[in-house]
Amino acid sequence: MRYFARIQYLGTDFSGFQVQPNRRTVQGELCRALSETLGTSVRVTGCSRTDTGVHARDFCITIDADGATVPPQALPLAASRFLPKDICLFFAKECDESFHVRYDVTAKEYLYRLVNRKVASPFDVHRAWCLAREIPADGLSLMRSAAAHLVGRHDFSAFTAEGGKDISHVRTLSRLTVERVGDEYLFRVRADGFLYHMVRILVGTLVEVAFGRYRPEEMPGILSSCDRARAGMTAPPDGLYLDAVFYDAGANDFL
Amino acid sequence: MRYFARIQYLGTDFSGFQVQPNRRTVQGELCRALSETLGTSVRVTGCSRTDTGVHARDFCITIDADGATVPPQALPLAASRFLPKDICLFFAKECDESFHVRYDVTAKEYLYRLVNRKVASPFDVHRAWCLAREIPADGLSLMRSAAAHLVGRHDFSAFTAEGGKDISHVRTLSRLTVERVGDEYLFRVRADGFLYHMVRILVGTLVEVAFGRYRPEEMPGILSSCDRARAGMTAPPDGLYLDAVFYDAGANDFL
Repeated sequence: MRYFARIQYLGTDFSGFQVQPNRRTVQGELCRALSETLGTSVRVTGCSRTDTGVHARDFCITIDADGATVPPQALPLAASRFLPKDICLFFAKECDESFHVRYDVTAKEYLYRLVNRKVASPFDVHRAWCLAREIPADGLSLMRSAAAHLVGRHDFSAFTAEGGKDISHVRTLSRLTVERVGDEYLFRVRADGFLYHMVRILVGTLVEVAFGRYRPEEMPGILSSCDRARAGMTAPPDGLYLDAVFYDAGANDFL
Repeated sequence: MRYFARIQYLGTDFSGFQVQPNRRTVQGELCRALSETLGTSVRVTGCSRTDTGVHARDFCITIDADGATVPPQALPLAASRFLPKDICLFFAKECDESFHVRYDVTAKEYLYRLVNRKVASPFDVHRAWCLAREIPADGLSLMRSAAAHLVGRHDFSAFTAEGGKDISHVRTLSRLTVERVGDEYLFRVRADGFLYHMVRILVGTLVEVAFGRYRPEEMPGILSSCDRARAGMTAPPDGLYLDAVFYDAGANDFL
């Protein structure tokens, strides 16, 4: 039996998604809980990796479980008895062997929450970048101008950290928007794929644009330099949420 | 020196607001942190009591601190070094001896969040009533009809738990609204004062109306019975937020 499932997790108390020895990880907790739920050993594959402290509001997995008899529509409730409170599995269906939950992804969208307040609210701790220094009044329009330069198909080598394993650094950024709601700035970033720390460096650079460290027109030069040192800071993981995962029309009858 | 201050807290890890021996309380943490901040012993008075697990998005306090020299506008940042992450003090000003932060309250408004999903989201754990059983399609309009019967000046004895210390149970409920946003129901409850567990019993009763246990027209009879056993269940504390505190025009130059 092979299941496709959609999950959510609060990343605060996890060392990221991927299993690591002696660390609490989302994949590790899923393997344990789903083995108990299904009464058989399982293999869990995720649509992406996420860093320590990063959250997911929509993350896709496949579960390979030989001999499992739990019907997919019963899996969410059955698994909820064994999953910890910081993970939920809210949708499941049976899945074809030919489908690959990671390699078949056509695009992903992240949400990044920044809250700009002198004093961090307890409701935002670990769930947003709580930034005390006030973003200037023209910050929003400056970030939007800079974002427009970054959208498109580019080599994003300047916007990735060492430690990534990708051979090509060319990605198509199809969306990079910023909106302001009260004291909160919401960034939405969509691409066909992401490099290590890419969203956090994009957001960190835009915030430095807002403070006037870069002009929006400098973005093309930073891209073409392929030099990490030219781009801005890495925003903290706390504000980052994997928000949507997209598959081809053929694969994507999952919702 | 006497300060008036506005704070927020996440109630999950507190045994309510009020100091109790051997319990972690908001008042206890405030006293400790503000004594350290101001370098003198302090007396902290709150605008209200809240139960274990109940949150506050806007809670008012006064701080009496003889000999304190920290200017009010510097207090938020100064206190943030000593406060735990589940409390923030975001506003302070100097305050008159004649003002009483609790007795001068003219109205308070609570927000109650109910999330109606088969499986609780990790983002809602401890921050909403995560209700798995599906509220019927006509539930929202039924709750609104019932709420209309409860608004006004009434004896709310049927909507309070034993253990309260109020002599009169007559209160004026000036607002009781329900709106639905996706799978979330938001209740807003405003009154000139609240009895012990009153908001949670009002919300619990409305939810039972949604499930057809009561008809909206039964509300006046429940009110006039003054019998707690006639009203509905007590909703869990997790979804309850003190959302706004109001003072008279004279006292209320605080925002």
